Amino acid sequence: MRATNDAGYDAPIGLTADPVVFTLLDGALCVLLARRLEEPQRGMFALPGGFVGTSESPEQTAERKLREKTGVGSVHLEQLRTYADPSRDPRGWLPSIAYMALVRPEILPASPPAHRDASWHPLAALPPLALDHAGIVDDGLWRLRARVADKSWFVSKGAGLLPEPFTLRQAQRLYEALRGERVDAANFRRDVLATGLLSDTGEQRSEGPGRPGRLYRRT
Amino acid sequence: MRATNDAGYDAPIGLTADPVVFTLLDGALCVLLARRLEEPQRGMFALPGGFVGTSESPEQTAERKLREKTGVGSVHLEQLRTYADPSRDPRGWLPSIAYMALVRPEILPASPPAHRDASWHPLAALPPLALDHAGIVDDGLWRLRARVADKSWFVSKGAGLLPEPFTLRQAQRLYEALRGERVDAANFRRDVLATGLLSDTGEQRSEGPGRPGRLYRRT
Repeated sequence: MRATNDAGYDAPIGLTADPVVFTLLDGALCVLLARRLEEPQRGMFALPGGFVGTSESPEQTAERKLREKTGVGSVHLEQLRTYADPSRDPRGWLPSIAYMALVRPEILPASPPAHRDASWHPLAALPPLALDHAGIVDDGLWRLRARVADKSWFVSKGAGLLPEPFTLRQAQRLYEALRGERVDAANFRRDVLATGLLSDTGEQRSEGPGRPGRLYRRT
Repeated sequence: MRATNDAGYDAPIGLTADPVVFTLLDGALCVLLARRLEEPQRGMFALPGGFVGTSESPEQTAERKLREKTGVGSVHLEQLRTYADPSRDPRGWLPSIAYMALVRPEILPASPPAHRDASWHPLAALPPLALDHAGIVDDGLWRLRARVADKSWFVSKGAGLLPEPFTLRQAQRLYEALRGERVDAANFRRDVLATGLLSDTGEQRSEGPGRPGRLYRRT
């Protein structure tokens, strides 16, 4: 289906918004998916997005769809990228604005909306995804890793996944899981403390062998 | 004007692509603008973009419009952000995908397409811009400064604005102009050399008082 506007230009048949929501679950980076209940590709897993209306911003649509399809409440969404390939949706030219978020796994309710199988899926073992959503998830992962590399972002946003207070060793394990690579412990400690975004609680906690670790909170 | 698609959802009346192209001219950060030849806001300066067709990607549209409206040829465009506020264009719901580029000023031909006044405008003295383009330019500047802060990006992309070979002092002046702030010379030299993206030509050039500067090329 192809539409044209008054001036004779091609017009999209709609606009969608798709949230790419990541978490860390049992040490594995996961993305939030829900099954499609409508054609095309009914029954397949997809990003939990939907059609944008003119009465709300695309970001509000992404939040609303996330809530309707997965039960996940308010999250901080960052605009990721817009996908506008005319062949990306069999219904017609349907651009989608994708958003990215990193959240705690507990924000997915134990009983999400029925029929959709809203669930966390490890990136290392994704099911086949509808439309071009696999590529969108890839781009989201790339963006997430770029954000995390910024230690200020990591401490202020990423470390929100840790229960407070936490040790720098816990923060390092989280950082490594998000970045997908090991880092040098001394450099990591120096860099995260240099952000000035952590406060030392003055307390310590033992973490197995070796010296106990100091406990920090985000400021 | 408001359109709806077969499924009853709101549909945009079209999709546009707008390039935000920056350069440095006489030490001032500038953006490329062209006058609108059509309503709405005919005669005002605007980003040199236009309607996306389904036969090309939005990025190709941005490149084509840039060429048609300013005479600027192939540039590397990075997707910046999509603007979809229903009230952003008086013609109807018309989302726009914005792109960002940093180029040498010479790519604007001495005689750009007539009637449009295609020209570089210092960010410090922008004329009134059509639609929401002033906000898009602001977002582009923010993105540019974030990119430049990454020394690898600065050396591989930003330093393309310098004639080669260049001294590290020249590179620092460029960096400071793009970032909008002064930096410590020793830290700057250490960081840009650490990128491994510069090769020492073995030659030197005198730059007024003080020791002559070593000359580098990008690898």
